[in-house]
Amino acid sequence: MPDWLTERVATTPEQVALLFGEQRWTYAALAAEVAGWCGRLAAMGTRPGSLLAVLMPNRPEYVCLVHAAARLGLVLVPLNTRLARPELAWQLAHTGCRWLLCDHTTEAVAADLAEPGRAVLSVDAPGRVRVGALAAARPGPFTPVPFRLDSTQAILFTSGTSGRPKAAMITYANHFWSATASAFRLGHRPDDRWLSCLPLYHVGGLAVLFRACLYGISVILHPRFQVATVNDSLEQDGATLVSLVPTMLGRLLAVRPAWPAALRLVLLGGAAAPPELLAAAGAAGVPVATTYGLTEAASQVATLLPAGVRQKPGSVGRPLLFSRVRIADEAGQAVEPGRYGEILVSGPTVMAGYYRDTAATGRALAGGELHTGDIGYLDEDGDLWLVQRRSDIIVSGGENVYPAEVERVLAQHPAVGAACVVGLPHPEWGQQVAALVVLQPGARLGEAELLAFSRQRLAGYKQPRLLRFTTALPLTASGKVARAEVQQALAELL
Amino acid sequence: MPDWLTERVATTPEQVALLFGEQRWTYAALAAEVAGWCGRLAAMGTRPGSLLAVLMPNRPEYVCLVHAAARLGLVLVPLNTRLARPELAWQLAHTGCRWLLCDHTTEAVAADLAEPGRAVLSVDAPGRVRVGALAAARPGPFTPVPFRLDSTQAILFTSGTSGRPKAAMITYANHFWSATASAFRLGHRPDDRWLSCLPLYHVGGLAVLFRACLYGISVILHPRFQVATVNDSLEQDGATLVSLVPTMLGRLLAVRPAWPAALRLVLLGGAAAPPELLAAAGAAGVPVATTYGLTEAASQVATLLPAGVRQKPGSVGRPLLFSRVRIADEAGQAVEPGRYGEILVSGPTVMAGYYRDTAATGRALAGGELHTGDIGYLDEDGDLWLVQRRSDIIVSGGENVYPAEVERVLAQHPAVGAACVVGLPHPEWGQQVAALVVLQPGARLGEAELLAFSRQRLAGYKQPRLLRFTTALPLTASGKVARAEVQQALAELL
Repeated sequence: MPDWLTERVATTPEQVALLFGEQRWTYAALAAEVAGWCGRLAAMGTRPGSLLAVLMPNRPEYVCLVHAAARLGLVLVPLNTRLARPELAWQLAHTGCRWLLCDHTTEAVAADLAEPGRAVLSVDAPGRVRVGALAAARPGPFTPVPFRLDSTQAILFTSGTSGRPKAAMITYANHFWSATASAFRLGHRPDDRWLSCLPLYHVGGLAVLFRACLYGISVILHPRFQVATVNDSLEQDGATLVSLVPTMLGRLLAVRPAWPAALRLVLLGGAAAPPELLAAAGAAGVPVATTYGLTEAASQVATLLPAGVRQKPGSVGRPLLFSRVRIADEAGQAVEPGRYGEILVSGPTVMAGYYRDTAATGRALAGGELHTGDIGYLDEDGDLWLVQRRSDIIVSGGENVYPAEVERVLAQHPAVGAACVVGLPHPEWGQQVAALVVLQPGARLGEAELLAFSRQRLAGYKQPRLLRFTTALPLTASGKVARAEVQQALAELL
Repeated sequence: MPDWLTERVATTPEQVALLFGEQRWTYAALAAEVAGWCGRLAAMGTRPGSLLAVLMPNRPEYVCLVHAAARLGLVLVPLNTRLARPELAWQLAHTGCRWLLCDHTTEAVAADLAEPGRAVLSVDAPGRVRVGALAAARPGPFTPVPFRLDSTQAILFTSGTSGRPKAAMITYANHFWSATASAFRLGHRPDDRWLSCLPLYHVGGLAVLFRACLYGISVILHPRFQVATVNDSLEQDGATLVSLVPTMLGRLLAVRPAWPAALRLVLLGGAAAPPELLAAAGAAGVPVATTYGLTEAASQVATLLPAGVRQKPGSVGRPLLFSRVRIADEAGQAVEPGRYGEILVSGPTVMAGYYRDTAATGRALAGGELHTGDIGYLDEDGDLWLVQRRSDIIVSGGENVYPAEVERVLAQHPAVGAACVVGLPHPEWGQQVAALVVLQPGARLGEAELLAFSRQRLAGYKQPRLLRFTTALPLTASGKVARAEVQQALAELL
């Protein structure tokens, strides 16, 4: 089996692969671009198995790098562009990436991340950038590696219980089974066009590239979600499919009275869909399919089609073909239908493990099942209901924020004694980050000062929108911080 | 990975799996039936790896046996119901099947095939049949075997150059990749209904069962192709897909002025589609997709969608994803686009080999490519054109007839010295079988007598429709029978 782009070009070279603004690439044209990037990456000194970090918004060059990595056997390390410099530095150090690719929008951050043994290069033309320009490199000779399904395609950072992100290794096999089972569930039309405004550094965005390539359909790529642009593109670019998080759907519903007939499915994931949102989408005739997925399972685990959503709003439906979901109690025993428990996932889409973290891998994949930490139940029909995402995760506008990570950063300030970070409801973003902080005895610190400290170390979306000081955190009987109590206290301030 | 029916039931149990006349089975109901047949097959004494011959027309029990075999790890040996007793006896002996399952329509033939070490049982109820009734057996306990993609699913008999059919071993992996690549080419709708009137003992009929199960769609099964019944069913049963051979499409076109809007694709294969047929289908607005496939590649190799058929009538399009087609000259070298050569196929749908025939397997799979013997070319766009099926094959109404096999049988008559069998054009069946026969010196034999002899030994569709005696067969310069000359001489008699 060759890499999928090569395979796709052998079968439908003239099919449109990519739309980006006014630009179009057929699969043949895309492959030609990819060959150029392969040559440049080879000239840069990469070898099969090399890790290639990428820090840039969605753009055609990103798509090329994804396919070039597949041909050369490189492991992609897509980095979240919203992270603060120290967060990025940690992820680069953890993976030991020797190459970091940026563009002109990210070079200011990226240039600071260069160090001995780590080159930073831009995919933009020289003149536009101040770091080295890979775009200007003369493509060298390269040899496509034998493509293996069990090779790691990407290392995707996800939230972890330790307060540090975890590096999930996603293989081509994970993507293949996800793409195939997704097509079997959602249907596939040879003329489909998938509008993708989720970032490529998230599995939900990345997965669309492989699906499109395997199915032979077109991706309408957006640099990011901008409500007006996406709204226009839905019609103008003839989208038949679009992946959205609830916040995005809410914003589109607010500006769009009628939806294009060509749009056959809105794949809604990333966070639980609020009932009011589903009701509004239903009233507007939007064909919403709700989905539950996570990075460690290469995106979709379960999906409910629009007809099901109308009957059971709030459910995420049955697991996809070949994926298995079990709801387990704390002892790991399966519980009855209707009973809450942890969602355990098994099947061919489950990641190979966490990079350089055997302990976390062992916990996450104990017994051959992915322990998601998410709470849900299966009803009598076998449909999955997500009750809550891992209690320790805040989902804000589709991005996952791990309270322990924010708490760790706040506590790094010398004046801070302890901090408790919780999620509070937010009408548009689903949740927002809030913090209750206890200062060291005798210390003095203002909110603004602490937030400035935090802003240097954490991505913007992780910043507390509400921060209050207190004299002591409430504790539970067992001496742990009473998070629910903190949450309630802060919610009253909204 | 469990067997696909089990997997399907875990995801969409309430989906309709099978329509047969007025009857309906959901996947859950089908699986319940299958469990019963598993129990009966286990009680019968089968073990994982046992070969199970099946001789019956399309019927729900046949579908159950296909899935039951998958659960128990049995290898299915579907037999062509149109074969004569000696042909069946040879196939059973070649495979060494210890069990032959029939129904009340085939038991007369099947009962004769019982022998020590080979049980013959019917799937019909006792009372209706005179052989043993498996249907009446009390289901025994059984253990599903671990499902393996590389297990042989079926041994399908196909034509061979030796004059004996060859036993192609088709694995679940072959079916999986065929089904997946087919969906990626044809598209997939969760509400698809695939009308299947091709016999289940042909790969084109059998493959539909696995596709349906993987996709989660419905099969509208017909006992056989009857123009009035299929014609009615297209509308009444809401077919969206139908597999046909050219003869069938021609007969439907003759009786049907308008085609249902729900029918999204007619998959036309089994023989080259005559230009007049494609023109007539185009005029009637039938969405024909032409396909090239063969048993040894688990059905579809290349397929051209309706839009392509309108532009390039006669082409069968590009190879499916992951299938590779090469056109080779006699030295095995790839030829230029536009040049004729043998069609070589490689990829994950190519059979494991011929059962108990390493020599034939070695020839067919030499160099890792399937040597189809079919002649074709690739045009500049990479679309495949089938110029002619193996010169030694006659395709009559979708059935393959191998001249050497018919010649061998004719020559068995003591009065016959030599015979040459060729294909002649037939307006409805595509081709018909014709024979030129030389008698032994001094022997006397009438046409009717020889045909009666042949009818006892060969399936009806293999019988010569035109048979003439001559004093000597024309020879080529190298002393071989000049088949083209025989063909021309016989054609003049039409």
